[in-house]
Amino acid sequence: MNAAAKKIMQRIENLAKISEEPGQLTRTFVSTAMRRANDLVAKWMREAGMTVREDAIGNLIGRYPSKNSPTKTFLLGSHLDTVRDAGKFDGPLGVLIAIACVQHLHQEKIQLPFAIEVVGFADEEGVRYQSAYLGSKVLAGNFNPADLKRVDANGISMADAICNFGGNPEQFKNSRANLKQILGYTEVHIEQGPVLEKKNQAVGIVTAIAGQTRAKIIFTGRAGHAGTTPMSLRKDALCAAAEFILAVENCAKKISDLVATIGQIETKPGASNVIPATVILSLDVRHQSDPRRNAACEHLKTSAQKIAHKRKLKIFWELIQETAAVPCSTPLSNLLAQAARKHQPKISKLPSGAGHDAAVISKIAPVAMLFVRCKSGISHHPDESVKVEDVRVAINVMNDFLTAVAASRQSAD
Amino acid sequence: MNAAAKKIMQRIENLAKISEEPGQLTRTFVSTAMRRANDLVAKWMREAGMTVREDAIGNLIGRYPSKNSPTKTFLLGSHLDTVRDAGKFDGPLGVLIAIACVQHLHQEKIQLPFAIEVVGFADEEGVRYQSAYLGSKVLAGNFNPADLKRVDANGISMADAICNFGGNPEQFKNSRANLKQILGYTEVHIEQGPVLEKKNQAVGIVTAIAGQTRAKIIFTGRAGHAGTTPMSLRKDALCAAAEFILAVENCAKKISDLVATIGQIETKPGASNVIPATVILSLDVRHQSDPRRNAACEHLKTSAQKIAHKRKLKIFWELIQETAAVPCSTPLSNLLAQAARKHQPKISKLPSGAGHDAAVISKIAPVAMLFVRCKSGISHHPDESVKVEDVRVAINVMNDFLTAVAASRQSAD
Repeated sequence: MNAAAKKIMQRIENLAKISEEPGQLTRTFVSTAMRRANDLVAKWMREAGMTVREDAIGNLIGRYPSKNSPTKTFLLGSHLDTVRDAGKFDGPLGVLIAIACVQHLHQEKIQLPFAIEVVGFADEEGVRYQSAYLGSKVLAGNFNPADLKRVDANGISMADAICNFGGNPEQFKNSRANLKQILGYTEVHIEQGPVLEKKNQAVGIVTAIAGQTRAKIIFTGRAGHAGTTPMSLRKDALCAAAEFILAVENCAKKISDLVATIGQIETKPGASNVIPATVILSLDVRHQSDPRRNAACEHLKTSAQKIAHKRKLKIFWELIQETAAVPCSTPLSNLLAQAARKHQPKISKLPSGAGHDAAVISKIAPVAMLFVRCKSGISHHPDESVKVEDVRVAINVMNDFLTAVAASRQSAD
Repeated sequence: MNAAAKKIMQRIENLAKISEEPGQLTRTFVSTAMRRANDLVAKWMREAGMTVREDAIGNLIGRYPSKNSPTKTFLLGSHLDTVRDAGKFDGPLGVLIAIACVQHLHQEKIQLPFAIEVVGFADEEGVRYQSAYLGSKVLAGNFNPADLKRVDANGISMADAICNFGGNPEQFKNSRANLKQILGYTEVHIEQGPVLEKKNQAVGIVTAIAGQTRAKIIFTGRAGHAGTTPMSLRKDALCAAAEFILAVENCAKKISDLVATIGQIETKPGASNVIPATVILSLDVRHQSDPRRNAACEHLKTSAQKIAHKRKLKIFWELIQETAAVPCSTPLSNLLAQAARKHQPKISKLPSGAGHDAAVISKIAPVAMLFVRCKSGISHHPDESVKVEDVRVAINVMNDFLTAVAASRQSAD
């Protein structure tokens, strides 16, 4: 599969040139760049023996027929949109590896006991309308119609943008997957983290897409002159926040697989000679087990309250967002792990801290995910990098995985 | 002195109405508001038996004659400019109490063995030209002529602004105090801190104007996805900064009279789902003993380096500004404390964490300062508040102080 891996690297480069902003890769939902990307990927799908359609929101779907009739369908894919100033691999890699697998079947004149549909989702990142997973939501049938009224930075409503692209919001229902037909969905994606690199492994099996809690925390003390207010008479909100930041780090270090991050901090009044009266923090907590995540958040809330109480400050804790964890399908993940073991001596199972289309599709079908190692865990950045050797391993794993799924279907039939 | 205190409160209100911005008190250096303020205060000076002049930078100076000839001069005063959206008492209170003292002498037909000059300094806050103490620097003879080229927000050079006001930069040398003539300078000022209120004392004696170190500290770690980077593989610059913030607080709490403040914090990239790569902090350290302040700063620098080393981060430490402490004159401060003891059972001696004109004048004459309690330590804010009872105490103390200085002069003669 060396040639196939090299071809994917070339296609990654070609896709990376399709951007709505010169000098960087930015390809948002139903943009003119997305039109060009869909058209190019559709050409590759057809070369791989697929018939190609676009659904009502602009998801690109290539279908490779089954040897059986009536037939069921197995879904592969990832997304074709990107963040602003993106890396080349986040999204497209999964679509291109899926196409390579079908190309392999097509070349070998193999048909499986189910059809394969390769999906290039139209929106996973949510950049244009600040609402993510638009593409997979339409497929899964849980798109929120209120989102159609959202407007982008240029004042264009989502409904109009979809129509301009060639889609049709009134036809979303017809783009829902037929639940009785769908066997499962498997997505290849770059890890976007440093674990596989650290373990020196090309690929890994995703156990679950972590649940997430986002909160906003405000410590309110009292401003004062930095020169004239003795330490003993201060109510410094930043010192309280510092205690809390370390409490968050300590808590996360103690619980396996828990990650907790304070990425934003704002101090008011924010002058070098004024004691901070108010500090606003963002908190992001993720774990593949919802009870563990919730317990950690409760613990952190209590910590914040204790810190505020001890320092005679006020504390405000606002829950911004809570997303439940999405476990991957054990049978599918076991098949994926078995396939991976043929190509890599040790296989790691790891949670995905980032969200993926697979999380949305899990509402309607069993899902599995294969992570591919990326350099230094860097993602959402032009430095995003994947080795051609690792792409080769991923193609091999996915080829064997599809064979195994077919075998399991045949034995089940 | 109840009537005198009430009169001062009324004058404070009248002066507070003289502003260059409607709805708030803002009176900057050689502004049209400052012209009106100088004219009004000059009228009050004349009523108190003084002859009035303006020096070449716009300092307002009222002179009350000595009974001796040839004569020496004792300086009293404070500043008449304000910060933006200022309180009413910071500056004017010291000028008005000085005038009240002279008024008392004038009413009682008392002349001292030295002349008194009451100075309303033209610029202490440095708002208009981002350069403070312009008025006292001219009097002390250490004005930097390069400052004349500074321009304000409207593009008006300092030199032009002074000329428009009626001053003359070419005459600054003639406005220098005659060192042989000056006996000393004593300034009454609101505390701008909470110590006297906490001790339930109307006035306090300033031991020194604290020295100050300002530094900029940058911790540089590594950005990463908040969901996909395990805690063990992070280089979180905000966690390092949090450790340092607490180290600063602990260090300052251990050293008597030391204050250390981190008032500004900036995190990059500053997204809720990205591990902070860079954190930039401001540090402000003050103490009346320069060796103690320097030792504390060295200790903090070492702490920052240790924290960075332990976490494998980079640390950058930039010294922004260093100002030496200015001790008040012990003989003058003792006379002030003796006078204060007649009107208040317990007298506290405290450093001033904020800068004052007295620090500049200390280069040419012994200085002393009397602090007056202000509500909740609030200053540089419209809520700045002083009780009329405390003003009464301050007038009494200053009257007795002048008598004591006169007595000490006479015994010395």
